[in-house]
Order: sequence, then structure tokens, then C-alpha cells
Amino acid sequence: MLFTKVHGLGNDFILVNKNEVRDLPGDLAGLAIKICHRNFGVGADGLVLIGPGKEADLAMQIINADGSEAEMCGNAIRCVAKYAYERGLVQQTKMAVETGAGIKVPELVVNNGIVTAVRVDMGEPYLDREQIPMNGSSGRVINEPLAVGEDVFNITTVSMGNPHCIIFVPDVAAVPLGNLGPRVETHPVFPRKTNVEFVQVLNEHEVRMRVWERGAGPTLACGTGACATAVAAVLNGYTGRTVRVYLYHGTLDIEWSKDNHIYMTGPAEQVFNGDYPIS
Amino acid sequence: MLFTKVHGLGNDFILVNKNEVRDLPGDLAGLAIKICHRNFGVGADGLVLIGPGKEADLAMQIINADGSEAEMCGNAIRCVAKYAYERGLVQQTKMAVETGAGIKVPELVVNNGIVTAVRVDMGEPYLDREQIPMNGSSGRVINEPLAVGEDVFNITTVSMGNPHCIIFVPDVAAVPLGNLGPRVETHPVFPRKTNVEFVQVLNEHEVRMRVWERGAGPTLACGTGACATAVAAVLNGYTGRTVRVYLYHGTLDIEWSKDNHIYMTGPAEQVFNGDYPIS
Repeated sequence: MLFTKVHGLGNDFILVNKNEVRDLPGDLAGLAIKICHRNFGVGADGLVLIGPGKEADLAMQIINADGSEAEMCGNAIRCVAKYAYERGLVQQTKMAVETGAGIKVPELVVNNGIVTAVRVDMGEPYLDREQIPMNGSSGRVINEPLAVGEDVFNITTVSMGNPHCIIFVPDVAAVPLGNLGPRVETHPVFPRKTNVEFVQVLNEHEVRMRVWERGAGPTLACGTGACATAVAAVLNGYTGRTVRVYLYHGTLDIEWSKDNHIYMTGPAEQVFNGDYPIS
Repeated sequence: MLFTKVHGLGNDFILVNKNEVRDLPGDLAGLAIKICHRNFGVGADGLVLIGPGKEADLAMQIINADGSEAEMCGNAIRCVAKYAYERGLVQQTKMAVETGAGIKVPELVVNNGIVTAVRVDMGEPYLDREQIPMNGSSGRVINEPLAVGEDVFNITTVSMGNPHCIIFVPDVAAVPLGNLGPRVETHPVFPRKTNVEFVQVLNEHEVRMRVWERGAGPTLACGTGACATAVAAVLNGYTGRTVRVYLYHGTLDIEWSKDNHIYMTGPAEQVFNGDYPIS
């Protein structure tokens, strides 16, 4: 089975064009678990299958390394868009992609014929307390104190389809993420737990972020976290509506557009091509 | 750069035949660090380069994922021997391979034309206390009590070129490896620290082992640890000189031969072929 290993900010995927594969196994969950294993397989966070769409240019399916399906992933769709363009599966730089979360429209940033980044519509943010979800009376949560054990943090909460709790700090490198992250993630005010972003404002259009992902711990990059961070920075008056977010291994450019959608622009990289035996 | 990803019991390597590569970078440490990264590269424990030997059939060079060189690795050399035979680099099933630790002679186990395992001479064990090395008066350490905090373990120590402390227990699954491993590893009686093996004797020719590797923590497989474990089992009268060692993901067959050498027979697997861009 021919594949291409790709990554967006270190979030890595095994990308397979279904048109190039004969006899794809029926048990895709089993295939993903096996091929994504980092010692015994190719190694990746997920397996991404692409093929022709029914009502769009392409269809993509994401199967996580544990065999579960992911509706959508901002890092994966950037890689899919770049791959599809560079391999000639689509001719235009803006394309419609069917995902488990509906049709998304990534747009390539092309400089001198080279795809340097991909812009993705990440949808609208949800700000009401019950939409996060958070316990308590309704309304937005902007710079509100939250007691976590003996510490008190001023938090801002945003949902991008998943919950985010953003905490602005003077020095993000000094945050004991492994200690604070899980204590905020599992705070009883978040009935479905929460992702936690610690954010340092550098100036009115740049911030630095470290993320504790719900259920995953410290990760290299979290696209929805960067979007939620930009929204929180705007709501607190720290930045304008176009924000560059510095992550552990790169940057994401976030725009909170006038149509209330969040547009995320970030890198997509191809690492190597391979051929994995399936039988 | 064409490569084949291989593994022996989950210890995985990117195997490159230097004859197939034009313009191999001069900075091999840098290449290994980059290509072995599990998110941004191909992902492996090490990069293994093979080519023609000066005084042997083949020469192999192992560069760890951190860029350092390893003299020799039992899991890697099994994969190299299988690869060289199956790709026609050698015609015979017993071959001489130049390594950083001298010439080794792996031997393929072939059933119906298929390589099912590889047997490697791992050299002689060292048993004197100063050879481990351990502080204290000279002599062998067989089933001697060692106080580790409030616990006392009966230990047997063996060097296979690196130090091993073997502790026999009734139930290896019940051992709190992450707690005990580092406490034994760094015990002051071991001036260069030690690998730690917890071993359950199943019968007089089979044992189960869990390993805490010095400097690496809990690992999937440790060839020298399996060899040292077999030696310790013989010295304690638990097994004969041919011992099957069950590891987390497979088995190694160890023979303490009459010539005092330890022969290790174990699996070698090819996972996939790939092509990694170098420039």
C-alpha cells in the first residue's frame, strides 16, 4: 500500500490515496492500529484515507492510532489539501473536502508555485457558558477568577466545537504544565473536562501558547487551541483580530473574520513516501 | 535515500544500504537525529548503515536517535543479517559483520526458504564483582541480599559488556517497575549504574523478564538483558543452559554454550520500504 507520511506542526499522519490501493482491508480500524504503531508499524498519530468526494472535490477519512474515527482535524486537512494539489488530484488552490464534520474548504497559499501554507475555515467560536460547557449561570466567561486548589487563575473560555480554557500568564515557559494542566482539565466546573491553554501576549498581534490537551496531555500543536486562544486574546483586548500563535514547533496564523468564522493558516509538510505491505 | 524500516522485538531501525545511496550526507549524526524523529522524520530508535566490509562480508554502523554511535546492538544485527541475505548482499546463511565491537557472526535460521530467526554470538559473560562493576570485595554475586531503601532484594549480577542486576520474583507482572527500576539502577553499589531485570522462572527452560534499561527506562526488549538473565538463571540452579526468555513482545532463545559464549536467537522483521528525501 503506497503512502505518504505528512505532518502539520508535528501532528503526523499516514496519508493514503484510495485510488492507488488495490485490496484495501475492510477492517480500517485494525489497519490504523497496526500501521500507526511507532515501533512495529510506520508510526503516526493517525491514518488518513482520501478519495473522490460525492459532493465535493475530495473526501477524507481520519482514523486515529487507537482505531477510533476523528470527524475532522485541522492539521490533517492542511496536509490533505497540499498533497491533493501537488499530486494533481485537484487543479485549483481552493477545494471542497468532505469530512466527518461536513464539507470544509481549505485554501492553499502558493508562492512561486510552491505551497507554503494552507488556510482552513475552522467555523465559529461558541462563547456562552453552557456552550463550553461550564457549570453555573449563563453568560460569557472572560477574565474570571477560578480557584484551583490553593491557586487562583483568571480564565477565559471558548468552544471551537471542543472546550478550551485560556489562561494568560507573563511567562509561558515558566508554567509547570504537567502539574497545572490536569488540575484545570478536570476541574469540576467543566462537566466534559477542558483543553487548557497557557498564553503569553508578546504584542498586539503575536502570542505564545502551550497546550494541555484533554485526554492527551501536553501535545506539540493543537489547532483548535490556537483558534480559541486568538478569540480569548481579542475578547480580553490584548490583540487585534489577526493573531500569530507561536507553538512548540512552529506557528499558526489565526484570523477572526467579520463573518464570525475563524480562519487558521498553517504549514503542511511531506516527510517521505513509502510502501507498506498489506495482505 | 532508499531505506527499509526493520525491528527486532520492537527495537526499530532505519536500515540503509550505502550502495543504494548517492550523496549520503557527511553529517551522519545530524541525519540520524532528523530521520529518527518520530513526528518530524521516519521515526526509529536508530539509523543503521550497511556496506561492504574490509575483512568481513559486511560492515554495519549504528547511529542512535540522539546522534551518538552504538558499537553493537543484538536487535539491529539480526535485522541486518536477514536483510543482507534476502536482498542478495550475501549468499550464505552465516556471515561475518564488522561492528564497532569487532567482527560478529550472525547465523540465519531458515525454514522452507524463509528466514524465521537469527542467531548471534553475544560473547562471554563476566561475573566477577569488579567486572560488573560493583563496589565491595571480589567474587561473584549470586543470590546476595541488597538493601534498597526499606526493601531487600536478592540479586545476581552479570556483565555482558554492560552491567545487569537480575532479581528473581514470583510474579513479574506484579513488579512496580517504574518505582523499583530506577532505585536499583542508581544504587550506590553500582558505580556505573546498572540495567535491572525482574525475572519469573516458569520452568527449567523458560523464564519471563521485564527490564529497566540504564538511561532508557522501561524498554520493549533488551538482548543483553535476556542473555544476562539466562546466565543468572543457570547460576541459581533454576534452569538448564538453554533458556527461552519471554519479553513484552516476543521471545529470545538463549544458549550458554560450553565454549562459555552466549548465543542469542531471535526474530527480525521488515516493516516497510521507503524513500526519504535528502538534499
